[in-house]
Amino acid sequence: MQEFKMPTIDEIRNHPNPNYLEKNEIQRTLKDILDREEPHVESLVEDWVKKGVKNLYLVGCGGSRSIMEPGKYIMDRFSNLTTERYSAYEFVTRKPRAVGKGSIVVLASHSGETESVIEAAKFAKNMGAWTLGFTGKETSTLADSVDHCLTYDSPAANLSKLLMVYLVCTHLIIKLGDLEAGRDIMENLKKLPDTLMKIKEDFREKGLELAKEFKDTQMYYVVGSGLLAGVAYQFCICTLMEMQWLHAAPIHGSEFPHGPFEIVSPEVTMIFLLGTDESRMVTEKALKFAQRYGAKTIVFDTIEEDVHPMLTPFALGVMLQWFAYGLSIEREHPLAVRRYMGKVAY
Amino acid sequence: MQEFKMPTIDEIRNHPNPNYLEKNEIQRTLKDILDREEPHVESLVEDWVKKGVKNLYLVGCGGSRSIMEPGKYIMDRFSNLTTERYSAYEFVTRKPRAVGKGSIVVLASHSGETESVIEAAKFAKNMGAWTLGFTGKETSTLADSVDHCLTYDSPAANLSKLLMVYLVCTHLIIKLGDLEAGRDIMENLKKLPDTLMKIKEDFREKGLELAKEFKDTQMYYVVGSGLLAGVAYQFCICTLMEMQWLHAAPIHGSEFPHGPFEIVSPEVTMIFLLGTDESRMVTEKALKFAQRYGAKTIVFDTIEEDVHPMLTPFALGVMLQWFAYGLSIEREHPLAVRRYMGKVAY
Repeated sequence: MQEFKMPTIDEIRNHPNPNYLEKNEIQRTLKDILDREEPHVESLVEDWVKKGVKNLYLVGCGGSRSIMEPGKYIMDRFSNLTTERYSAYEFVTRKPRAVGKGSIVVLASHSGETESVIEAAKFAKNMGAWTLGFTGKETSTLADSVDHCLTYDSPAANLSKLLMVYLVCTHLIIKLGDLEAGRDIMENLKKLPDTLMKIKEDFREKGLELAKEFKDTQMYYVVGSGLLAGVAYQFCICTLMEMQWLHAAPIHGSEFPHGPFEIVSPEVTMIFLLGTDESRMVTEKALKFAQRYGAKTIVFDTIEEDVHPMLTPFALGVMLQWFAYGLSIEREHPLAVRRYMGKVAY
Repeated sequence: MQEFKMPTIDEIRNHPNPNYLEKNEIQRTLKDILDREEPHVESLVEDWVKKGVKNLYLVGCGGSRSIMEPGKYIMDRFSNLTTERYSAYEFVTRKPRAVGKGSIVVLASHSGETESVIEAAKFAKNMGAWTLGFTGKETSTLADSVDHCLTYDSPAANLSKLLMVYLVCTHLIIKLGDLEAGRDIMENLKKLPDTLMKIKEDFREKGLELAKEFKDTQMYYVVGSGLLAGVAYQFCICTLMEMQWLHAAPIHGSEFPHGPFEIVSPEVTMIFLLGTDESRMVTEKALKFAQRYGAKTIVFDTIEEDVHPMLTPFALGVMLQWFAYGLSIEREHPLAVRRYMGKVAY
């Protein structure tokens, strides 16, 4: 770790700014994970179910925390298995009493070296739980700390880990929950590599145009509900705050009229994420209110796209990434620039 | 509902600005709830446990959503009972599959008329769950929609409902979880009416002073972990956004270094909530980082106060209320002014 030195404007501008939406990277990594890890997950789940599964814990930080939300959603919707998600130090300090034999603890870390996630893996193992890691680094402390590990090799880290969460949850649903719903989701997961390539092309222009329009905005509220609440959170903390040093706050659509809406005015910019799950009307209601009272609104909507209602977080991930990439160009602030992360001690 | 008319500066300034911290209101309402409702909750829990409890759902919106977080925390920590919390429309649209016979569904609404909470009560009843309401209005649609109802009669709504959540969870812990921990919490809950009166006096001056210092701040980040994550959320959406029309975003302490900390700079104001549960060090680490890199920081810390480590959300509620009241004076913006809530259709 070095002493802190704020990067100069030139250092920021000249930082590399790779875009994983170019070429077929998202198709490649999702297909790779489906090919290698889907049968792996199926056999793990089969084995656990045979031995008796008591509950499921989904643990990660930041991006790796946000991807757990859709997993929790489909588990709640289509199974009776208790499913919890925690940021890693919350898990480690709270020490949930129900973690033990029969618990599956999923632990995600792109680097495989996130201290709190490693601690969470140790805690889970000590309690007798089964541990499953998701990581971008096959040789890493996390990989060494868990019973089993799923790996990817891609800069499209969140999409890769998101697919892994879906694989685990969907196989659990097939075995323990609503078989038909589980099979339907699994079938559509397998189409994702192609589905997303089309969405990516459909949305390129709109994403880049929006970035031109909003390049001077300094603060965003991002509203999502249901399957998309986690995506709203991810876009705030990972993209806007971490990668663009902009102010951001997620708002759950169901909470919008219970406090947050009092700040609606023409000075405020709000992003609304619309999917096709049961919560769509909740976010739509918030959007209409914000529009009626003059907030600047940006809408990302999957309704015109051919994506399964339970898989919209993938589509939104791609759509928002164009907007993020566009902002990085317009603002001359590459997505990979950091002032603190990986540079100074925390 | 009337047509929207933005209140004038004079209408805002001259709006009544009652302060429930004056006199002994918080002592009175907490004591009243303990006297009337604690035996009521005890007998309800006894009855449910006899019949077989499968899981617990805590449902509310805004302030009534935020108070559920500490309930979830102590349940996770001291019992094996599955405990979930949802904003009401999230609950209604997600329709968790495990809601049914043997589920306790707690539904909170100050007015007793929150549409989504009423819908949630109907859904829960249809699924065969037991329903328990918390409300400030004994004759209300919520009271008519649930099997049992706990009531309070106080402007200190969040503290009153928070006590109710603790009563339900603590009795469940006593019956189904860590008996000793449950009894310890119950004993300390009964001391709260007096404990909080002292904290209220201890903190008056500091809260009002801080408000003078920060009266021109337009945006706050509020950082909390563990038992206090819900308090951070509540202060953002209910106090800063709803009651002061200021920008605000909660950050979980465990998530701070995984994205959010990249916006730390001398231009940013961050409030840190420190309690004495296991997560204290998580928030402390974030605080030290923010201080090291020059953010303006405000710290609310319970460590000098005589409050049980599992009951710090009550103490923080009182501390933050002084700051909120101070802001309302300094900014000439009474806490009860609304532009939309209760005034225009949503």
